[in-house]
Amino acid sequence: MNIILLSGGSGQRLWPLSNDIRSKQFIRILTGEEGRVESMLTRVYRQILAADRDANVTIATSKKQVSSIRNQLGDKVNVCVEPCRRDTFPAICLAAAYLRDLQGVGEEEGVVVCPVDPYVEDSYFEALKELGGMAERGEANLSLLGIEPTYASEKYGYILPVSGERVSRVDTFREKPDAAAAEKYIAGGALWNGGVFAFRLGYLLGKARELLSFQNYGELRARYESFRKISFDYAVAEREKDIRVLRYRGQWKDLGTWNTFTEAMAEPVLGRGILNETCSNTHLVNELNIPILCMGCKDMVVAASSDGILVSDKVQSSYIKPFVEQMEQQVMYAEKSWGSFTVLDVQEDSLTIKIVLLPGHGLYYHSHEHRDEVWTVTSGRGRVVLDGVERAVGPGDVVSMPAGCKHTVFADTELKILEAQLGENITVEDKQKYPLEVAGRAALSEQEPR
Amino acid sequence: MNIILLSGGSGQRLWPLSNDIRSKQFIRILTGEEGRVESMLTRVYRQILAADRDANVTIATSKKQVSSIRNQLGDKVNVCVEPCRRDTFPAICLAAAYLRDLQGVGEEEGVVVCPVDPYVEDSYFEALKELGGMAERGEANLSLLGIEPTYASEKYGYILPVSGERVSRVDTFREKPDAAAAEKYIAGGALWNGGVFAFRLGYLLGKARELLSFQNYGELRARYESFRKISFDYAVAEREKDIRVLRYRGQWKDLGTWNTFTEAMAEPVLGRGILNETCSNTHLVNELNIPILCMGCKDMVVAASSDGILVSDKVQSSYIKPFVEQMEQQVMYAEKSWGSFTVLDVQEDSLTIKIVLLPGHGLYYHSHEHRDEVWTVTSGRGRVVLDGVERAVGPGDVVSMPAGCKHTVFADTELKILEAQLGENITVEDKQKYPLEVAGRAALSEQEPR
Repeated sequence: MNIILLSGGSGQRLWPLSNDIRSKQFIRILTGEEGRVESMLTRVYRQILAADRDANVTIATSKKQVSSIRNQLGDKVNVCVEPCRRDTFPAICLAAAYLRDLQGVGEEEGVVVCPVDPYVEDSYFEALKELGGMAERGEANLSLLGIEPTYASEKYGYILPVSGERVSRVDTFREKPDAAAAEKYIAGGALWNGGVFAFRLGYLLGKARELLSFQNYGELRARYESFRKISFDYAVAEREKDIRVLRYRGQWKDLGTWNTFTEAMAEPVLGRGILNETCSNTHLVNELNIPILCMGCKDMVVAASSDGILVSDKVQSSYIKPFVEQMEQQVMYAEKSWGSFTVLDVQEDSLTIKIVLLPGHGLYYHSHEHRDEVWTVTSGRGRVVLDGVERAVGPGDVVSMPAGCKHTVFADTELKILEAQLGENITVEDKQKYPLEVAGRAALSEQEPR
Repeated sequence: MNIILLSGGSGQRLWPLSNDIRSKQFIRILTGEEGRVESMLTRVYRQILAADRDANVTIATSKKQVSSIRNQLGDKVNVCVEPCRRDTFPAICLAAAYLRDLQGVGEEEGVVVCPVDPYVEDSYFEALKELGGMAERGEANLSLLGIEPTYASEKYGYILPVSGERVSRVDTFREKPDAAAAEKYIAGGALWNGGVFAFRLGYLLGKARELLSFQNYGELRARYESFRKISFDYAVAEREKDIRVLRYRGQWKDLGTWNTFTEAMAEPVLGRGILNETCSNTHLVNELNIPILCMGCKDMVVAASSDGILVSDKVQSSYIKPFVEQMEQQVMYAEKSWGSFTVLDVQEDSLTIKIVLLPGHGLYYHSHEHRDEVWTVTSGRGRVVLDGVERAVGPGDVVSMPAGCKHTVFADTELKILEAQLGENITVEDKQKYPLEVAGRAALSEQEPR
């Protein structure tokens, strides 16, 4: 199966675990096989492989998510990066072009498009595989997955099928109705639209030619910014006559708020903390290295990360967005393709950061104009390059980099570094990058800006 | 007025703001004059001076509180350090001997003994001054402050006076009764025992001679460990026939739990945080440098420090002690006489600490056997001494101290230092101290172990 996972989303509704550069799909608080903690992304990827071990997975996303995807899945998936956000139709066209031009997928092959973050049981991906087959066999131009509704939700779009059979032709769509209308649709056999589409690659590329004058991937990418924002539903689904829908009856949850997200937690406490015996229906997620004690909490969620702490009634937690928006916020923790960084201390004229570099990874070769930096290696082995000169470093070694000094570091084993940034105007923008200029050694294999 | 403040107490009930080395009297969350944040200690000291600008204040305490007292009050008060804990009678005897032998207070002078942490209005200290006068004039052997009860508390001892006059002879005492008995006492004009005693210095020293074979301060201190634990109430008050009590009708609160402590906060939020409009009767105290968002919280207290985070229903917060006891805990923040330290990061083989040294202060000259240390100065100016060699340091300077290297640092201006401790067995016990061995410079004025 060729599957395109649409990975978007901002990081506000699950603050403080999600932030500007860590969307909810990357938060590691779910419990997977053998009790391992996993994110929505790693869970969905695991489930796809369980349904189809040869699945060709491509993630369509924006630039700022690439680090997190590479951190969590390495090179096991393809990543198609949108130059900017233009809603789902251009994004799916770009990914389709990526499949044809960069991966050699044939235009007659089936492709399934799916959100990156459904919280579902394994049978969902069996259904997706079936959907891909239906598309490839040409049973319809467009094949959709319809979720059996469990209540008259006002949050979802509805698909109205012609019949109640497992696979049916689609009569029409209804966008987010009110509860009364939803009741009526459901009584008439309507299904939730779960945002899954399957088609032959050639079908979608035809639409791309028609609506975006598409020729090839490179050209589509170059013109991407000029496209207007338009959803796949609006551009394709609502205009297509030949659509079939496959019913899915299993578990399907949209873990979009803390209220729903905590329902997916296997244990009420994740991380360091205690809920005393007077707490009820309360979940605690703690990424900090200090304990949290909850007493007498009813129906609450407590979530803590380097970015901040949320203490909320579960129902109230759905209304978090405006409050998060008004908080002036620095990203205090981020997963990067090369490892992670955590801001330990913020002072007026200095910033202290802990850098963890994964073995075999390194930073971009760079310099700063307005700040000095000092590295203290606290564990691991690696090599630094300072103004073209390489040297090995280990625990206790100190590297001073005055403003203007070109520098990078490469990890031979997992490397932990304490970085002191010193200066009056410390910004992420103050960074100049250079090609690495040390001869006679392996290039830093994976470089990426922090 | 000679006043002895008894400063004891463990740090569990107001966790995480209090800890093993920061008792509740040192927590800075009260609002004083001109909106300045103050601790119980600085508040009480300010109130004493308001009642008597020439007050001679002596704090009787244990060794581990000296740093916090010096940090908050500098050298403005006398500190009488108990070699170990032996309850209030030996502690008051030691302080009385300290007054006579080290401060030259005459045996005919009045002395008032008071807990360090009453939350009261200024008139309380006017009453204490009056009590000191009563003692000095010999109106009774022992003069007590009786608090007008506001309810039939089971938490306090009761003083039963002979009459309802403002000053009355004391008939008898009753230790913490049940509510019914308390009702009866109050109906009969009983007062709460607020733990305040006034006497002529000679009277108390007589008791010390009688019960502890006291001769002088040095000898008392030397034998201190051999004394049995005994309270002043039991050893003196309950056996004395000639006692008077002065009624105090003003505000008097024992801020011993979060529930009562938050009542003394001028604003519901102290530190970075938001209580949204759906919160009610909720208090937030945040010493961390990250925001806390509270939504839909009713009757709760949320308190965060480098040591941990408490999220509790206010009533439940009284039962915090056993949970704090079971939490394995490293002190993550401490005020010292020379400034403060904050643990920023704990790893298996390293510990990262931020040190803030106040101008004119320095550390002990010391070395470590099992760990290397690296200092990175992030702001300020000072001087380090490494194995007898002094050098000036400023922002960006790095000092590497391998195990065995003798070192110290002295702050000329406020000095902020990032300290990386590196080794397999990092403990506070791994510390050897030495006399400073640099010639030709001022000795480090205030040294104290961390």
